Amino acid sequence: MDIVDIIRAKRDGARLTDEQIRFFIDAYTRGGVADEQASALLMAIVWRSLDTAELTTWTAAMIESGKRLDLSGIDAPTVDKHSTGGVGDKVSLVLAPLIATQGAADPMLSGRGLGHTGGTLDKLEAIPGWRADLDRSELMTVLRNVGCVICAAGGELAPADRKLYALRDVTGTVESIPLIASSIMAKKIAEGTGALVLDVKVGSGAFLPDAASARELAETMVRLGAAHGVKTSALLTNMDTPLGWAAGNALEVREALDALSGTGPKDLVEVTIALAEEMLALTGIEHTRSGLEAALGDGTARRKFKDMIAAQGGDLTGPLRDAPEQFVIESPAPGYLRRLDARAVGIAAWRLGAGRARKEDPVSAAAGVLCLKKPGDEVTEGEPLLVLHADDARRFGPARAALEGAFDIGAEPPEPRPLVLARIGP
Amino acid sequence: MDIVDIIRAKRDGARLTDEQIRFFIDAYTRGGVADEQASALLMAIVWRSLDTAELTTWTAAMIESGKRLDLSGIDAPTVDKHSTGGVGDKVSLVLAPLIATQGAADPMLSGRGLGHTGGTLDKLEAIPGWRADLDRSELMTVLRNVGCVICAAGGELAPADRKLYALRDVTGTVESIPLIASSIMAKKIAEGTGALVLDVKVGSGAFLPDAASARELAETMVRLGAAHGVKTSALLTNMDTPLGWAAGNALEVREALDALSGTGPKDLVEVTIALAEEMLALTGIEHTRSGLEAALGDGTARRKFKDMIAAQGGDLTGPLRDAPEQFVIESPAPGYLRRLDARAVGIAAWRLGAGRARKEDPVSAAAGVLCLKKPGDEVTEGEPLLVLHADDARRFGPARAALEGAFDIGAEPPEPRPLVLARIGP
Repeated sequence: MDIVDIIRAKRDGARLTDEQIRFFIDAYTRGGVADEQASALLMAIVWRSLDTAELTTWTAAMIESGKRLDLSGIDAPTVDKHSTGGVGDKVSLVLAPLIATQGAADPMLSGRGLGHTGGTLDKLEAIPGWRADLDRSELMTVLRNVGCVICAAGGELAPADRKLYALRDVTGTVESIPLIASSIMAKKIAEGTGALVLDVKVGSGAFLPDAASARELAETMVRLGAAHGVKTSALLTNMDTPLGWAAGNALEVREALDALSGTGPKDLVEVTIALAEEMLALTGIEHTRSGLEAALGDGTARRKFKDMIAAQGGDLTGPLRDAPEQFVIESPAPGYLRRLDARAVGIAAWRLGAGRARKEDPVSAAAGVLCLKKPGDEVTEGEPLLVLHADDARRFGPARAALEGAFDIGAEPPEPRPLVLARIGP
Repeated sequence: MDIVDIIRAKRDGARLTDEQIRFFIDAYTRGGVADEQASALLMAIVWRSLDTAELTTWTAAMIESGKRLDLSGIDAPTVDKHSTGGVGDKVSLVLAPLIATQGAADPMLSGRGLGHTGGTLDKLEAIPGWRADLDRSELMTVLRNVGCVICAAGGELAPADRKLYALRDVTGTVESIPLIASSIMAKKIAEGTGALVLDVKVGSGAFLPDAASARELAETMVRLGAAHGVKTSALLTNMDTPLGWAAGNALEVREALDALSGTGPKDLVEVTIALAEEMLALTGIEHTRSGLEAALGDGTARRKFKDMIAAQGGDLTGPLRDAPEQFVIESPAPGYLRRLDARAVGIAAWRLGAGRARKEDPVSAAAGVLCLKKPGDEVTEGEPLLVLHADDARRFGPARAALEGAFDIGAEPPEPRPLVLARIGP
């Protein structure tokens, strides 16, 4: 089999055969296909796409490039959630313990942030002592004992994806719905979960800002999950404005702790409960909305979270680190906050030190943006809207530049927008 | 400037700016852009193409990646010919000496063959002692003294093209009209010629088999030449059947010597004279068709050829090497040869040893196919049609397989087809 023939076939709009796809994924993972050949094929796929059958094989080959986790030793029904990434999206920190209180088990293998969206592992690493890297037996122990675990996906899980993702990142081939879908789904299917709910973000802070692309991505992933025997559904949720108050690692952990105590921001709690209901429905576990709200209000979920963190070495007895430098952005006029742009806040948090431009960059635990007001809130002139947190005051200038034009104050409150825009699934 | 932004811009269908194009060509040539990034951009160009302005800058940047030859020391008007490659295309060997007899100077920097089409340097290397590699002062001496020189393009001529071409070859990004046009024209413009005639082949044995693509390529190259101050025109010529009798290195040199003595095959002579008239017309040198025919018939052109070969160390006093093994393919029926497929003959010659699959492979001087009959010729049953020449009889099987279905014998002669299909130029 000749890789150039495979590239030319896709370039010319042909369907790739199963053999061609499996040859490519296997040979590229092992180093038998050069990076320049793989990137040419990836660009041809951005151009010509992959149909459902090609994509199913492509994803299967990525899964088979490594080991699939065996969760048969877990008695509870397994179910996980994956978000396509947003600003202030700390849902995972609340959701995994919450569904564990209902008798489900969540093996949440997560990643780090890149660009303006944060990563779950970066957030949890703001907790002193917490370890993202667990070996397989540690992972199983935490999952079995607590009912949820959030940790790094090891190198043996879909290694083809790791190599392909790094290549796509430097070759302008990230933005392809089948390539995005297969990258997410290969890792999630390899994780061994029995069911999966996708939180596909839509809006300025989302990876795919337009609703049509987000819907297509959701539908593609739901089909892929079903094709691989994982019960999968998706919610499209709004990401025009940050979720909750905080964008930044320690700031978001604090907010998650609030939500786990029943005092979280309304939007965060609403999205979390919607996803929890969807996850539990897929597992068949009986549940009620009021039962979920109760688990957040009565400390049950918070205890699960603390158990999970403690099992991975995290110490929540002391306070999380505060940023030494803060800068307040005030409302320039009285009225209503009509708009607060998610992407701008995400970029500001990134520039403050909460995010990274390259995979190997460190992130600051304390840096970020706290949104004191959310769209719809009334404000007076000079009232604080946003507080920027940084380790170094020199970061405020670039962050403030990102926030220029990022919000509007007007005489009327904005039309309320639904948070959950659509459900896609069986 | 960020290469990923450039790739994404072309991927999304944008025009590249002059700065982006110059940055890419320069950085890639120097190693500042990785192969996998360059190949992704090339595939995006196969997809989105380059418009006239982008292509002019792209070609200029390729020329500026090296040195442009200075032919101002040559008194005669300089003019060159480039063929897009065909089967049995030994026109250059006859044409360069022929136009030198008329007072033009041809600095013909050539390449080697790849795949089913032969390369001019491979053909001349069938002559014992002949050297393709001349330094700049040797090149100028031969050109000044003889009026024509055929030699290898040195590494300093458009080095960006060398690197890009090698990459395109392994990444399925050869087939793009702007990339083909810029690759050819950057080398030819860098060669310093004042005028240029392109022989764009059309038909089964051509690089671009369909007439519409061949015409688009010709028009693109003619525009590029004009944009860079080189008087450029193109002839579209038929390549459905091999040109002349021979496809193979020494076999073609012999046939060129016949043509230079006035006894060459009609089709080869007709294409050569048409190109010579076009070249001389561009230079403004007065000439007549009968004068060109006379130069072929009276030994003048042959002497020029011998002078040129001798100046590069070639020894034509002895016979060229004959293949030790020959295999005759006979006509299966009486009638007329209606069709003899150029591509099949080219592939057969390649499999016999005349061509190479990879740039670094050696070629056989003696191997090839001799076509004793051409379309339109009458044949009896059992009469020899083709003679296969090889160094090793084991090559006959694969070559014969390539020739299955490659010719038709019928009761009526075929409709005659014109050799020169169109002229494109100012």
